[in-house]
Amino acid sequence: MIKMDAVLVGFGTVGQGVAEAIQMKDQLFVDRFGEGIRIVAAFDSNTYAASKKGLNPTELVRTKVGKGNIGKKRPETIPEMLSRLDYDVLVEMTPTNIVDAKPGIDHIKAALNAGRDVVTSNKGPLALKFREISKLAAKNKCNLRFEASVGGATPVINLASELLRCERISSIRGIMNGTCNYILSRMESEGLPWEPALREAQQLGYAETDPSYDIDGIDTACKVAILANAIMGNDVTVHDVERTGIRGVNLEAVTLAAQDKKVIRLIGEITEKGVEVAPRLIPRGHPLSISGTLNTFHIQTDLAGEIIVAGRGAGRHETASAVMSDLWVIMRTKEPNSHSS
Amino acid sequence: MIKMDAVLVGFGTVGQGVAEAIQMKDQLFVDRFGEGIRIVAAFDSNTYAASKKGLNPTELVRTKVGKGNIGKKRPETIPEMLSRLDYDVLVEMTPTNIVDAKPGIDHIKAALNAGRDVVTSNKGPLALKFREISKLAAKNKCNLRFEASVGGATPVINLASELLRCERISSIRGIMNGTCNYILSRMESEGLPWEPALREAQQLGYAETDPSYDIDGIDTACKVAILANAIMGNDVTVHDVERTGIRGVNLEAVTLAAQDKKVIRLIGEITEKGVEVAPRLIPRGHPLSISGTLNTFHIQTDLAGEIIVAGRGAGRHETASAVMSDLWVIMRTKEPNSHSS
Repeated sequence: MIKMDAVLVGFGTVGQGVAEAIQMKDQLFVDRFGEGIRIVAAFDSNTYAASKKGLNPTELVRTKVGKGNIGKKRPETIPEMLSRLDYDVLVEMTPTNIVDAKPGIDHIKAALNAGRDVVTSNKGPLALKFREISKLAAKNKCNLRFEASVGGATPVINLASELLRCERISSIRGIMNGTCNYILSRMESEGLPWEPALREAQQLGYAETDPSYDIDGIDTACKVAILANAIMGNDVTVHDVERTGIRGVNLEAVTLAAQDKKVIRLIGEITEKGVEVAPRLIPRGHPLSISGTLNTFHIQTDLAGEIIVAGRGAGRHETASAVMSDLWVIMRTKEPNSHSS
Repeated sequence: MIKMDAVLVGFGTVGQGVAEAIQMKDQLFVDRFGEGIRIVAAFDSNTYAASKKGLNPTELVRTKVGKGNIGKKRPETIPEMLSRLDYDVLVEMTPTNIVDAKPGIDHIKAALNAGRDVVTSNKGPLALKFREISKLAAKNKCNLRFEASVGGATPVINLASELLRCERISSIRGIMNGTCNYILSRMESEGLPWEPALREAQQLGYAETDPSYDIDGIDTACKVAILANAIMGNDVTVHDVERTGIRGVNLEAVTLAAQDKKVIRLIGEITEKGVEVAPRLIPRGHPLSISGTLNTFHIQTDLAGEIIVAGRGAGRHETASAVMSDLWVIMRTKEPNSHSS
């Protein structure tokens, strides 16, 4: 029987989605490991709730949605509480901050220093301080997993690091931002200029009100940095990524490309030449010509040649899916005689 | 130190590719497991070679290419020898036979009955006798792995069974035959009628001289049956798959689809409605609209929503890639304290 007591930090869309998924998939974990995941504490930005016997995930979400917060005021800071509480895994889901990675970085370090495993969807700490936290995890013999930080539900990190163990990966290229891809797809399919396509993406809730994070390629650059570090063994931060967004892509360029049976896509790439984000011409029918909001990753290897994996890059249950898959792997590694599945 | 003594049966393109890959990746296995994979015997259709100390993979391929056979006449049948020899894993790579699954089925059963693990690229036994051999493997506590049997290098089976463990999979749809997809892509991009597109595929070595296996959807139906059994827990054979090939798809249909921004693709599908192969209209930009010879699988799930994986469906090193990944997993499961990667 494998026990897994989790602390959830960050209780916005992703946090609530993970709570719901833990509830939804309880039986699956019980069937396999003898016990489900227990949420022993949860934190939103101002309050927290805790119970050694486990909090009811449905109740937690209901309280958050109804009252706007999750429980009572914290007696200490979150890192202090993460050092003191009794749990097995921190699930860190606060918003990405690419200036100083806070508060996520402090949560992750507190948990690793306390010898706890960490699963995170937060790009900031991974795009800015990858070496530091991965070394800390190794030093304390903790798992540090972050499938949800790149490509939402798309299992690109676990695919590359678990299923392609016999491959030498020479490059990764991908559509890593659904908002940009939606805008470019609409320009091409509807002949929309840039501005109305962006407004449409905003109205549908794909783009932020300040869209710079998406369309200037910052989000893609974070993901490029994470993949470069995690899969290719590089040591880079988001600031090392050469970056051109899609502001310069006008309808004329999209139309001209279409005449040549090509599409324009914002591509993040990790190659021998370096790490870069830029709009690229892609032949129609190529795996990286996919329309809409999916994230798509094209991995070049020596034996397989090329492997493509795609999925939904955002969304409550989509991101939760990636978090759950990391939690599953951690429980599996704790089995005394763990097998492959 | 994990030892892995392999017997290779079938020494055509795939068998030779696997021998080369075992050589290429030797250091990777030594670094991780303390020992590489040793080929203790290899069989082509008429001859065999064996050595308790391990055969040199490069020499084996050189002998086969130079002399047309691998060694000396067999004293017994292959199943008899597989029952008698000392080894850990059978790698079964004889050609697919969808009439009676022979000779592959006899090799696989002999190895499983002797308590050996099995890795195979051979669709016949899996598309005709899946339950029988998977039960036999379970009874003898043996691994039976077959990533290479569907989609060549594409890790669709291992992705679904290992990385999507928390997902409820409701359907799988895919482009599972590169030859058909090549023909349909060329009809659309070059305005080629059916016949010259097929001849082109044959000249490039994609299609068989008797192309029926590809274009009548038989190959796709085999893969549909395997995925239905292995991932969806069905109990079907290739004969249960409703099947329409691409012979009826003319240039007019392809052109008409293009006017509506759609493409025609031969899609294999496993849904709640059943198992089927048929040409389908796919919107341009959809993951299943990909051109060329790649195999693409679209998996519908409850949390992730949709996951797509694609890769090269055939080829010497591509198929070897899938075999190697299965061999890696088997070695990993033998580690006393095996971890996730």
